[in-house]
Amino acid sequence: MIEVQEQELLAPAELERRLQAIGAERYHHRHPFHLMMHEGKLTHGQLQAWALNRYYYQSIIPIKDSIILSRGEDSAFRRAWRKRIVDHDGDGTRPGGIEKWIQLAQATGVPSETVIAERGILPAVRYAVNAYIDLVSKRSFLEAVASSLTEMFSRDLISLRVDRLHQHYPWLSGGLAYFDARLTQAPEDARFALAWVTEHAQTRPEQELAIGALSAKCDILWAQLDAIYYAYVTPGWPPPGAFRPDEDQPA
Amino acid sequence: MIEVQEQELLAPAELERRLQAIGAERYHHRHPFHLMMHEGKLTHGQLQAWALNRYYYQSIIPIKDSIILSRGEDSAFRRAWRKRIVDHDGDGTRPGGIEKWIQLAQATGVPSETVIAERGILPAVRYAVNAYIDLVSKRSFLEAVASSLTEMFSRDLISLRVDRLHQHYPWLSGGLAYFDARLTQAPEDARFALAWVTEHAQTRPEQELAIGALSAKCDILWAQLDAIYYAYVTPGWPPPGAFRPDEDQPA
Repeated sequence: MIEVQEQELLAPAELERRLQAIGAERYHHRHPFHLMMHEGKLTHGQLQAWALNRYYYQSIIPIKDSIILSRGEDSAFRRAWRKRIVDHDGDGTRPGGIEKWIQLAQATGVPSETVIAERGILPAVRYAVNAYIDLVSKRSFLEAVASSLTEMFSRDLISLRVDRLHQHYPWLSGGLAYFDARLTQAPEDARFALAWVTEHAQTRPEQELAIGALSAKCDILWAQLDAIYYAYVTPGWPPPGAFRPDEDQPA
Repeated sequence: MIEVQEQELLAPAELERRLQAIGAERYHHRHPFHLMMHEGKLTHGQLQAWALNRYYYQSIIPIKDSIILSRGEDSAFRRAWRKRIVDHDGDGTRPGGIEKWIQLAQATGVPSETVIAERGILPAVRYAVNAYIDLVSKRSFLEAVASSLTEMFSRDLISLRVDRLHQHYPWLSGGLAYFDARLTQAPEDARFALAWVTEHAQTRPEQELAIGALSAKCDILWAQLDAIYYAYVTPGWPPPGAFRPDEDQPA
């Protein structure tokens, strides 16, 4: 635990600087799996494993946002936050983020039935994702909201990713609608959450809790890629029962 | 999910055979990290990382057993089960399993303060261990009890491990009291749990749930070693903030 005693409240700009520093050090844009993706070094099978496993994360986003919604005691907060659920679940006419992620997985060649049934997803990915549910359920409401601040960093990552996926894996180009939408959604969401955290972290220990929650969320994202990298990139082995790509040629 | 429809109840011997088959395929005696340990191939630093990270698992055992105790509606069950909590927490005079595990970690050279503060433990190990808490809290009581059945397999593993640790890492010999105790405790506990599951899984779907819970528990044990192996054995990298051994010489 970070020990903070009788320390002064950080000014908003300094709080944002601390949050940015967490991202620079711990956000998964630095993870070797993403570096390989951006350099076009992943095989077709590795991209399949990524799309399939990451689906589990996508599938719980509206659940974790519903938990946050259920803990928000203020109508204005809930009105702002519920947009996130619509973004991921869609409105029944336009597809939401989950459906778009299934399209991405299909574009890699994983059948939608496998994705929706979550067949072969790595246990370690499940555990990490479930830790996110745990975080927003059990930690303070401030920490639950602050854990979403990884969206401060996601625009740059997604923008680079879309560019590099088009370049290195042109056969995937039809499946990138998810990322196109996130390019505008994520910065909007991040702006709201950062303003809210800045306003509601009213003591230095609360500010440190918010910073810690962002760090914990970065760990959760990082651990998912670790599990995928080690099962499918290093000369390792997927654990018993996990997805096995049907081919492992360069993509 | 396993689909079971109108299938017949397994006879007790057949149920036990199915459970044994899960262990043969999925229990962590087959994990490469343990194979290396038993061949004397782990470095000192790798043994430190193992002892430190595995402490987190040890530390929650009496918590998960207390959850099971809290869900047991029958006095006779609770009387039998509470022994496990005593085994791990001790009685204030004789040390319990947690204290003995701290001794083991100290024997590897990790200070007890580091262990008790759980400093540098891999996030992925935390997530896997917390999934065990989740399992015994949220799944059916039958599954919660059945998840303990990995103890059917632990005597053979511990017996081999103690033998090989003495052989390959004689400087660890003073720290093995934990395992000595488990050699008698685990089989007693396994006998009780197997008899209880056999009696209380009264339909084939219930039997399949019990088998599935054992499999899920094996995944949880396996994922912990995956995280340790990949952070400390493969030419990988411990995630940001994780324990780094101070030396990496052959043990």
